[in-house]
Amino acid sequence: MTVRVGVVGVGVMGADHARKIASVISGAELVAVSDFDATVAEAVAAELGARVHRDGFALIEDADVDAVIIATRDDTHAELVRASLHAGKPVMCEKPLAPTAAESRALVDAQAALDVPVDLVTVGFMRRFDPSYVTLRERVSGGELGAPLVAHCVSRTVGSQPGGDSASTITNSAIHELDIVPWLLDSPIVEVSYQRGRSSVHSGTRQDPQIYLLRTASDVLVTAELYLNARYGYDTRCEVVMESGTAALTLPTHVVTDAERRRGVDYPADWIPRYADAYRIELQEWIDSIRGHRASTLATAADGLRAAQVADALVVSMNSNGAWIDVDG
Amino acid sequence: MTVRVGVVGVGVMGADHARKIASVISGAELVAVSDFDATVAEAVAAELGARVHRDGFALIEDADVDAVIIATRDDTHAELVRASLHAGKPVMCEKPLAPTAAESRALVDAQAALDVPVDLVTVGFMRRFDPSYVTLRERVSGGELGAPLVAHCVSRTVGSQPGGDSASTITNSAIHELDIVPWLLDSPIVEVSYQRGRSSVHSGTRQDPQIYLLRTASDVLVTAELYLNARYGYDTRCEVVMESGTAALTLPTHVVTDAERRRGVDYPADWIPRYADAYRIELQEWIDSIRGHRASTLATAADGLRAAQVADALVVSMNSNGAWIDVDG
Amino acid sequence: MTVRVGVVGVGVMGADHARKIASVISGAELVAVSDFDATVAEAVAAELGARVHRDGFALIEDADVDAVIIATRDDTHAELVRASLHAGKPVMCEKPLAPTAAESRALVDAQAALDVPVDLVTVGFMRRFDPSYVTLRERVSGGELGAPLVAHCVSRTVGSQPGGDSASTITNSAIHELDIVPWLLDSPIVEVSYQRGRSSVHSGTRQDPQIYLLRTASDVLVTAELYLNARYGYDTRCEVVMESGTAALTLPTHVVTDAERRRGVDYPADWIPRYADAYRIELQEWIDSIRGHRASTLATAADGLRAAQVADALVVSMNSNGAWIDVDG
Amino acid sequence: MTVRVGVVGVGVMGADHARKIASVISGAELVAVSDFDATVAEAVAAELGARVHRDGFALIEDADVDAVIIATRDDTHAELVRASLHAGKPVMCEKPLAPTAAESRALVDAQAALDVPVDLVTVGFMRRFDPSYVTLRERVSGGELGAPLVAHCVSRTVGSQPGGDSASTITNSAIHELDIVPWLLDSPIVEVSYQRGRSSVHSGTRQDPQIYLLRTASDVLVTAELYLNARYGYDTRCEVVMESGTAALTLPTHVVTDAERRRGVDYPADWIPRYADAYRIELQEWIDSIRGHRASTLATAADGLRAAQVADALVVSMNSNGAWIDVDG
Repeated sequence: MTVRVGVVGVGVMGADHARKIASVISGAELVAVSDFDATVAEAVAAELGARVHRDGFALIEDADVDAVIIATRDDTHAELVRASLHAGKPVMCEKPLAPTAAESRALVDAQAALDVPVDLVTVGFMRRFDPSYVTLRERVSGGELGAPLVAHCVSRTVGSQPGGDSASTITNSAIHELDIVPWLLDSPIVEVSYQRGRSSVHSGTRQDPQIYLLRTASDVLVTAELYLNARYGYDTRCEVVMESGTAALTLPTHVVTDAERRRGVDYPADWIPRYADAYRIELQEWIDSIRGHRASTLATAADGLRAAQVADALVVSMNSNGAWIDVDG
Repeated sequence: MTVRVGVVGVGVMGADHARKIASVISGAELVAVSDFDATVAEAVAAELGARVHRDGFALIEDADVDAVIIATRDDTHAELVRASLHAGKPVMCEKPLAPTAAESRALVDAQAALDVPVDLVTVGFMRRFDPSYVTLRERVSGGELGAPLVAHCVSRTVGSQPGGDSASTITNSAIHELDIVPWLLDSPIVEVSYQRGRSSVHSGTRQDPQIYLLRTASDVLVTAELYLNARYGYDTRCEVVMESGTAALTLPTHVVTDAERRRGVDYPADWIPRYADAYRIELQEWIDSIRGHRASTLATAADGLRAAQVADALVVSMNSNGAWIDVDG
Repeated sequence: MTVRVGVVGVGVMGADHARKIASVISGAELVAVSDFDATVAEAVAAELGARVHRDGFALIEDADVDAVIIATRDDTHAELVRASLHAGKPVMCEKPLAPTAAESRALVDAQAALDVPVDLVTVGFMRRFDPSYVTLRERVSGGELGAPLVAHCVSRTVGSQPGGDSASTITNSAIHELDIVPWLLDSPIVEVSYQRGRSSVHSGTRQDPQIYLLRTASDVLVTAELYLNARYGYDTRCEVVMESGTAALTLPTHVVTDAERRRGVDYPADWIPRYADAYRIELQEWIDSIRGHRASTLATAADGLRAAQVADALVVSMNSNGAWIDVDG
Repeated sequence: MTVRVGVVGVGVMGADHARKIASVISGAELVAVSDFDATVAEAVAAELGARVHRDGFALIEDADVDAVIIATRDDTHAELVRASLHAGKPVMCEKPLAPTAAESRALVDAQAALDVPVDLVTVGFMRRFDPSYVTLRERVSGGELGAPLVAHCVSRTVGSQPGGDSASTITNSAIHELDIVPWLLDSPIVEVSYQRGRSSVHSGTRQDPQIYLLRTASDVLVTAELYLNARYGYDTRCEVVMESGTAALTLPTHVVTDAERRRGVDYPADWIPRYADAYRIELQEWIDSIRGHRASTLATAADGLRAAQVADALVVSMNSNGAWIDVDG
């Protein structure tokens, strides 16, 4: 059985998913795409040999579509996920599941009401499939270095997108950290504090960088830096400090170059090359789980909800002068 | 169209190919396997859902097999490739194409006699698909650092297989270097010299390590170390020295660990994890080329022949006290 | 003119200073030592060719001693510095200048009352002379990467000394961070917050690791981890995040080793090898300044006081549930 | 006793020695300098407080000069060393001891004829005091990784000096490798072969890079690359491959920088910063040995002779189409 996939929203992210489904995922084929910009949809469809639907709802209802990927604007995720649930089709929704925790909870509840044996909704927190994060998690849970005590995380990008503010840094960008930290440490984040200092001249009115303190139920204290206008490159770092040693992500590189008095390795410009393997492995696991009628190891709707709740708590802390905020309020 | 693949020989290498075809290659399915050890064949077939043939010839003749992977003992490659040619089926033969240059030439000639529009035979020199080698080649051909002048290559493994000798180090192990160096430098190897020094106590009567000097048609001088009993890990290195800088492979790693007074990254124990991406990308390209009725970018039979010729010249040099030997004799 | 140096306290640190004065510092000679343990003093004196005084006060009063190094127990620093001031002799006091800010202030005042053209008191914050920190500071002040926004500091040691508590981690160990951060960022620390999480099983009742948030007058937000029982090695890290790039200390290493499936570099077991260059360069600068009748670039008594004040503020924060504390009260 | 040092030749190298003697070497003082360019000599003398002699011979005969450093043009070394022997004064001669092996042998013989209890002549092969080489040698001789089997050496500089040719690359630049390799492996070089390939467009008629094969008496085979016009930076590399692991020099760095899509560390522009520690430690050991009336661990005249003999053998190989040449003829 080949899973016939439709992709709703084929901008940079959705087109990347569509291409992977069409070319490097075993057991899947791309059958349909849609986009609010019809020209974009037509171009991707022509390139990859799929048909175009006028909108995501039509695509979801297409009887030839077995499973749905949602990669549209954040504020459309909830209704498209709901439509997928209504159609009884597996759906992988790019993060965030919904812009607010309240909307995320509604989706979790809607899925629970369906009473299906296997969850239909998964959320695209692809870092869970990044080979570096997977290896790091094995080191942490392996126990050879004792219990984790502290972790230091850094997420930097070349530049912020237009239109955001200090809160959207948290809800839109930091959300990856907020999902991966508890997954990595195998313990939920229960308390958060937002901190700020000098902001880059390149960041406008948005506070950038931002520093978060996160505390897990297991009492691990995490420092996290989120810096959108770091300019030098796209960079994800994470070090877990344990009782008798540490383990940390390395910068993925292929080649080291000596030139002009410097020995150096390259940074990617954005997340697509950095997480190319993660996206591929995530999609393959998603397709495999559908073919196997089993739960996948992708993030669930409940995971998406939790990340949104932690993000909301950080926004509260931001508006409370950095006070520690209990996520479960 | 899904390419139905049969794998002849499902030891460590063949079973790895079979698993990839069955699980992570788009547009392919595994339909049949065979092995000289029927128990092994049965186990792999049961795991992956394929049927078992009594031998490779029966598998090749199976009408449900569209394409063949050969991963058997080196001395069986030639007759199985010939059978595939006879059956008119695309075949990917693990290196070496044949144990001797003479046998390799016979296969090149046999294919040429078929007069098919697209070559049927490809050879599994997977390094050509390793992302590090691919990036390194781009740096070399890009020209920003000027022309390549010298290259330094190192291939080390944890331990040698039983039964080999100093010549088989060249023909069986060094052959990867002999294929990748001209691919990387875009110029054939035209002259070679074999050098030896102190040999490891762990290497028996086999000279180990061995040092080769290789000269390309473009006059680039290459030093290559082949060390089978290096013990510390599986390690491939390559640095290309150019007119205004250098570029070199990096050790692929996911995590760096601090423990017991040391900061370190892990080596793989063998080639399977080191070249996992390369094998996957190579197989995908092979399948894509079959589906597209086009030539692939895999090594050709002629490439396999050339590598064998260079290896033979190195053996002559070894038996001539290290004299420089002209590959084209 | 050769500066005749006496060393008060010749335990691990003082003996190291004495050896450097005796063997690798130009323009100085070691003439006298003392120690509360007479046997230790005799042994060092015999090794290095110096005479022994019954205590530090006698050494300071010795007319043949031109300049004094104090490397005794923390709680004796103040009275020995005072005696040196009384004798009108240049003195380099190991950190801390005194165990409390109040005592440090008294020494600053005592020196001011002397009305000498050049300060007599310097404090051994050797990181200011570490070539890595010096280079890092140049990168920060150079401005090519824009203004500093955030810094991340880590200080880890193999194990804590017996007898300390959570407060002494701050006043005794973290004090190096509290001195170097404002030196590095060229702005005083004005506000601090102490944070804690899970503590190592190897740390007894002491909170370990500890996390500090430091804010400079220039609004740079600094995260600092102090982890005494890190076990894996002695490790100092610092990354300064700027508006268009970052700069960070590297781990000083001489050799990389491949063995047992790992590529690794060694950590020192303690601060002596890590900061050997820094101590040597610091001592040379101290001697040069004495010979030149000029102010040195070593930390001053005022610097020692400031670090103590910041440490005190951190202890207040620790006892105030992590509240942000204004250093200047 | 303070050793009063005179420096003959105060160009880049000699001035660096003079400054170190004047400022960071314990137990020494700079008393005199000379240079064929009187203006240069006056400037250095004024800066450092030394007197100027009209030439090296006058300086050597100065009764206030206890020990002599020679850093003049290569072709003047022999006569100045001979004068120092005649004066009975310890002398450290920059490499090479003399331009030819014959002249070097004459100096070895001249010293032997003096019948002094401690050698007067030492040669400035400073790599023997570089902390990285020292640590590497400890790893090799320590035996934990088994016997050395192969070594790979690289010496690259930014650009060649005007006026040299392919032979002078060997006798003037490669001579450092030819001294350090046997020191590192604790076995003399007994056989050599010169190899060449494509030469840089930046190297004029000089062959550059050059590749050498060196064989020690212990049968270790060494590959060495000497590349004067490498342009990207000053770079010394050495990896020793042993029976159960490898050890290699690391690039000395203080800071790593992230900027413009690249993570990088800096190369020095020339040998002075790269070997600053080595020069300082070498000079201190030289002074200490003089004060202690003992043999130093600096390279001896015999070492200087041996390196010249190996260089001569390489030149013979160069003129013999790369044939292996026995150093002991």
